[in-house]
Amino acid sequence: MKKLLKKITIVAERVLHEELLELLKRHHVTGWTVQSVTGEGSSGINASDWEGSVQIYTLVSAKVADDIMEEVAAKYFENWSVVVYSQDVEVMRPKKYGSSD
Amino acid sequence: MKKLLKKITIVAERVLHEELLELLKRHHVTGWTVQSVTGEGSSGINASDWEGSVQIYTLVSAKVADDIMEEVAAKYFENWSVVVYSQDVEVMRPKKYGSSD
Amino acid sequence: MKKLLKKITIVAERVLHEELLELLKRHHVTGWTVQSVTGEGSSGINASDWEGSVQIYTLVSAKVADDIMEEVAAKYFENWSVVVYSQDVEVMRPKKYGSSD
Repeated sequence: MKKLLKKITIVAERVLHEELLELLKRHHVTGWTVQSVTGEGSSGINASDWEGSVQIYTLVSAKVADDIMEEVAAKYFENWSVVVYSQDVEVMRPKKYGSSD
Repeated sequence: MKKLLKKITIVAERVLHEELLELLKRHHVTGWTVQSVTGEGSSGINASDWEGSVQIYTLVSAKVADDIMEEVAAKYFENWSVVVYSQDVEVMRPKKYGSSD
Repeated sequence: MKKLLKKITIVAERVLHEELLELLKRHHVTGWTVQSVTGEGSSGINASDWEGSVQIYTLVSAKVADDIMEEVAAKYFENWSVVVYSQDVEVMRPKKYGSSD
């Protein structure tokens, strides 16, 4: 019942919350988890400016993970403080979480 | 001082919070971390219904990780929106966190 | 555009929050994410005592990860309930997050 998937985590300014969920849906992602976080990046943004950031993660196939990371980078890296990274996970019952691919 | 363990993460409706900690204790887990999250699954549950979910993780041996994942799946997958997954971690001072096995 | 890094997570009593960020800065870390968590350790500290803990993570090179884990262990393991662990991550655009090394 275990399946190897990728956990994709996106950390971004809160204003991008809905837009990022729409991005995930375009990749047929049907499950995700959202957390409030604070943080500090290295581009001159200080902790108080960045307060109220959002961290979104989802569990998807390796192919979908690559597609999501590339779209996030292409859309947001130039003008936003967005971080996106991928990790290997073993998931029980993957059919109820993540992409339908 | 580093030890390879498994990080087991469980995301579930908040009502299962105490029950899931009891499940961990039955596997001799003595340390865990709890976070409030929101999320959306793929079983017809929308974000507002699922708001106020809980994410629990612990660091345990591979054997204990498998046992916990199997018990969570057997107990909760049929009737609840529970996600459980495992990741490799290198931990400093594992004796003060996770299972006593 | 993907780079293999280490995600270092530190879970600690909230009172150590600023001190831990100072520790990260000494290792030239310029980006991190902070979350509020609750938890329970195995050293006689109960959940209510530990309530209001902080979880800090950053994405750094393997060398910096080892250095941070060793310093956290040396400074805090004797007298505090601090957990620190490392995971492999693939990061897009690592230059805007984590250590400058």
